[in-house]
Amino acid sequence: MQQRAQDTRLSVIEGAARVFAEIGYGNASLADITKRAGVTKGALYFHFTSKRELALAVIDEQHAMVQAAGSDIVASHRPALEKLIGLCRMFGQQLLDEPIVRGGIRLTFEASAFQADVSGPYQDWITTAQQLLAQAQAEGDVRSDLDPAAFARYLIASFTGVQMVSEVLTAREDVMARIDHMWEFMLPALTQRPAG
Amino acid sequence: MQQRAQDTRLSVIEGAARVFAEIGYGNASLADITKRAGVTKGALYFHFTSKRELALAVIDEQHAMVQAAGSDIVASHRPALEKLIGLCRMFGQQLLDEPIVRGGIRLTFEASAFQADVSGPYQDWITTAQQLLAQAQAEGDVRSDLDPAAFARYLIASFTGVQMVSEVLTAREDVMARIDHMWEFMLPALTQRPAG
Repeated sequence: MQQRAQDTRLSVIEGAARVFAEIGYGNASLADITKRAGVTKGALYFHFTSKRELALAVIDEQHAMVQAAGSDIVASHRPALEKLIGLCRMFGQQLLDEPIVRGGIRLTFEASAFQADVSGPYQDWITTAQQLLAQAQAEGDVRSDLDPAAFARYLIASFTGVQMVSEVLTAREDVMARIDHMWEFMLPALTQRPAG
Repeated sequence: MQQRAQDTRLSVIEGAARVFAEIGYGNASLADITKRAGVTKGALYFHFTSKRELALAVIDEQHAMVQAAGSDIVASHRPALEKLIGLCRMFGQQLLDEPIVRGGIRLTFEASAFQADVSGPYQDWITTAQQLLAQAQAEGDVRSDLDPAAFARYLIASFTGVQMVSEVLTAREDVMARIDHMWEFMLPALTQRPAG
C-alpha cells in the first residue's frame, strides 16, 4: 500500500477508536466515525466495508501497538521479573494515553456483540508472561516450583480485571495505583514457597 | 404484586437472561425474548417498557440471587477466610448453573452499550470481601498489617478477570480450576509478611 493510503487507513482507525472508546460498538455509526476521523465516507469505504471490519482493525492495531511497546521492554537488559512488571505498567499507561488502545480494549470487552474471537491477544500475552516467568526462575527471582503457565494465565486474567474494574469504578483514574497494588499482592506467591 | 404477576415477571427475566447470555444485548430483540420466555408480548410489556429496562432487571435479579447465596455462606459458622473462598467458588458455580447469573454477568460486561451504571454490584462485593478480610485478621488467618480495603478491591478485580478470561478462552470450562488457582496464588500475600 502506498504511504498516503496507509496514512489515511491509520487515521480512519484512530478516529474509529476514539468513537468506539467513547460510545461503544453498538452506539457508534460509520457517520460518527467519518466525522471524527476527518475523512470522507469514500476514504472510509475504500479501506473498510463495514463497522465490524473497522472494529476488528482497531483491535488488531491496538494489539500491534501494545505488542511493539512490549517488545522494546522484553528486549531491554533488565531482570525478567522487572520486565514483566514493566509490561503491565506500560499497558496501563497506554490505556491512559492512547486512543487506539482505549478503543481496542473497549471493543475487546464488547467483542461478543460483533462475533469476534479475541482469544489471540490474550494468548499472546499469556505466552509472553510465561516466557518471562521461566526466565525469572532461571535468574533466581521466582521460586523454581512455580508453574509458569498457570501463573501467567492468572496474571493476564488479573490484569484484565484490574483495569476493567478501575474503569467501572474510577474511569481509570486509579489504574496505575491498582496495577502497583496487584504486583504487591502477587510477589509473595512468586518468591515464597507455599506452606505445607 | 400478586404471586401470579411476580411469577410472570420472573419468567420474563429468566427468558431474557437466557437470550442475553447467548447472543448479547445488541443482538437480542424483544421478539426473541418473548419466544424464549414462553410469554406473550403483552405480558412482557406489562412488566417492562424497553429492552434496556429488561436488561437492568436481569442484572438486578442476578445480583440479588448471588447475594442471597452469599448471605448463607457469610452467616455460616466457618472461619472468615474460608467463607471468602467459598463465596468465590459459589459465584463460579452459579456462572455454570444459573441462566440468570450467566445473562446478568454478560450484561454487566456489556453495560456501556446501554448506559448502565454497574458499579453497585462491584462495590457490594468489595465491601463484603473487606469485612471478611478484617474478620480473618481478627481470627489470626490473615496478617495484621494487610490493608483489607486494598486487598478486597484486588480480589474482586482478579475474580472478574479470571471468570472473564475463562469465558473467552474455554467457554468457562475451566472456571472452577482457575478460581482455585487464583486462591493458591493469593494466599501467600494474605499470610506472609512482605519482605523488607
